[in-house]
Amino acid sequence: MSFISEFQSITENQINKLNLIKTPKGLYEPIEYILQLGGKRIRPALCMAACYYFSGNYEPSIEAALGIEMFHNFTLLHDDIMDHSSIRRGKPTVHKKWNENTAILSGDAMMVKACQLMLNVPSEVMKEIQSVFYQTSLEVCEGQQLDMDFENRQDVEIEEYIEMIRLKTAILLAASLKIGAIIGGAKKEDAQNLYKYGESIGLAFQLQDDYLDVYGKTSIFGKKVGQDIIANKKTFLLLSCIKNANKEQLKELRYWIDASSINPDEKVKAITKIYSDLKIDEKSKELMNDYYQKSIIALNKVNIKPEYKEELKRFAMNLMNRFN
Amino acid sequence: MSFISEFQSITENQINKLNLIKTPKGLYEPIEYILQLGGKRIRPALCMAACYYFSGNYEPSIEAALGIEMFHNFTLLHDDIMDHSSIRRGKPTVHKKWNENTAILSGDAMMVKACQLMLNVPSEVMKEIQSVFYQTSLEVCEGQQLDMDFENRQDVEIEEYIEMIRLKTAILLAASLKIGAIIGGAKKEDAQNLYKYGESIGLAFQLQDDYLDVYGKTSIFGKKVGQDIIANKKTFLLLSCIKNANKEQLKELRYWIDASSINPDEKVKAITKIYSDLKIDEKSKELMNDYYQKSIIALNKVNIKPEYKEELKRFAMNLMNRFN
Repeated sequence: MSFISEFQSITENQINKLNLIKTPKGLYEPIEYILQLGGKRIRPALCMAACYYFSGNYEPSIEAALGIEMFHNFTLLHDDIMDHSSIRRGKPTVHKKWNENTAILSGDAMMVKACQLMLNVPSEVMKEIQSVFYQTSLEVCEGQQLDMDFENRQDVEIEEYIEMIRLKTAILLAASLKIGAIIGGAKKEDAQNLYKYGESIGLAFQLQDDYLDVYGKTSIFGKKVGQDIIANKKTFLLLSCIKNANKEQLKELRYWIDASSINPDEKVKAITKIYSDLKIDEKSKELMNDYYQKSIIALNKVNIKPEYKEELKRFAMNLMNRFN
Repeated sequence: MSFISEFQSITENQINKLNLIKTPKGLYEPIEYILQLGGKRIRPALCMAACYYFSGNYEPSIEAALGIEMFHNFTLLHDDIMDHSSIRRGKPTVHKKWNENTAILSGDAMMVKACQLMLNVPSEVMKEIQSVFYQTSLEVCEGQQLDMDFENRQDVEIEEYIEMIRLKTAILLAASLKIGAIIGGAKKEDAQNLYKYGESIGLAFQLQDDYLDVYGKTSIFGKKVGQDIIANKKTFLLLSCIKNANKEQLKELRYWIDASSINPDEKVKAITKIYSDLKIDEKSKELMNDYYQKSIIALNKVNIKPEYKEELKRFAMNLMNRFN
């Protein structure tokens, strides 16, 4: 039996019970809408699982878990405006279905709702939980800013990219586990090791997402392959390619990046060829594996029952196996 | 000696000490910028004053006061995007000086910063303070949504307008006082009466702002007269005029409201004439005075030293005397 998948279902049920539609509807309907678009509810499930692993009870962590999911969806809502995305999970984004003002304001209200949910934690850990949550929230904003900054920079280093995805993606997974652990009464060191586990898994996951954009099968990955290449997105693959390319390869890369009217399929094919010549796919897998190993090392230090560790290892494995 | 004005200066000094500029600069510089644009710092000053009145000490309320000011400036930042405002306090708005994405994200970070500041309150009142703060924050979002909804509605009632300005403007003043009072150890009833005082003063203040848009002197008011009329803003004056106008007056009003190319000065003059014929200026002053009286009634019930009540009465009087 898997606790994490059970907690994913519990999250889904709890979201349905939130009873979000109040007056004025223009503010609350978009909140209900984006929460109902679905998603895997991984963050709240990890939060509840961590609480359960340390205390045998997940209930004290339900509202914090929902607060994290609310915050996560708030960031998606505002990111969609900033990235001019029209579609999320196959449906129109909030700023497309309504308008930008609605998306800004409903997002703001979601952030406040998340804060309200985070108040419903055991009082003895309230300040600690909130400190972790707000520090993480601020760092997620920093990650999004770095992501936008990188669009206009030609000198992004691989280390900077890793730091950006750490902030934008990894630490919210990490904080979900840490917050659940703290509510479950974990010792500081255990909570921190779970954080490290989540952080490394988050990094591996994002690197894999970059990898799958090029090497994934659309049927499994669920997205069209090559989108990052077409958009010149400075992923690990591209940055690593720039770093390792010889003069000729750099020149070709530059041609495809700067070309204003090209056949996108040809561009994807040409850049993928340079990646393969430079074995960027292998470098990418190596780095993913490094982070996967780091996550297991951190996990092994956590004082929870072996079967719980096994579950978290399976969870990490499942994430890593998306490209098989 | 005025405590409130002293606390306004203390707020200014404390803002200068916040040390906001961190990496990435693109996220933090706009926060520093909007906070340095100035403003009267009324909300934090009222928060500290309320704390002082009940405890003889304002220091435990400093961070909460700054959190409220941070939140207030966050709402200004996002409202400026939604209202397409180019200028705030004589300087370019954040989304004009930088861009919309920066304004959205820096605003989000300000909301988080506000939450972090609100954590630094005495632990025994932390949950209560935060409940008041987040409830207020959510209601401010509701007020902004109503304000936007009203732009597209032709059937806005005066009562709805009052509710909108209550949410958008009045309750943050009210909550500032209440939060300061709670930190200062006030009894529930006293904190609630101070809230009512602030709420009524906030309503009177906003009604006066509407009034001054038409009847103020640019030299004193600091804004060009008639802007609300030109923008067809559904203020108390316009809604009251529509309610009281006869058929002919309604027809003329409708002409000026619907006209697509008109001389703005003529429009202001014509609509002001209808207002005057219907004594809307007097009705407006009466309603302001009603709220002023309500604020004094609530204030009189608060158990603080008479000289502190006198200060809050003077504060209310000063606000009300802007049109003399």
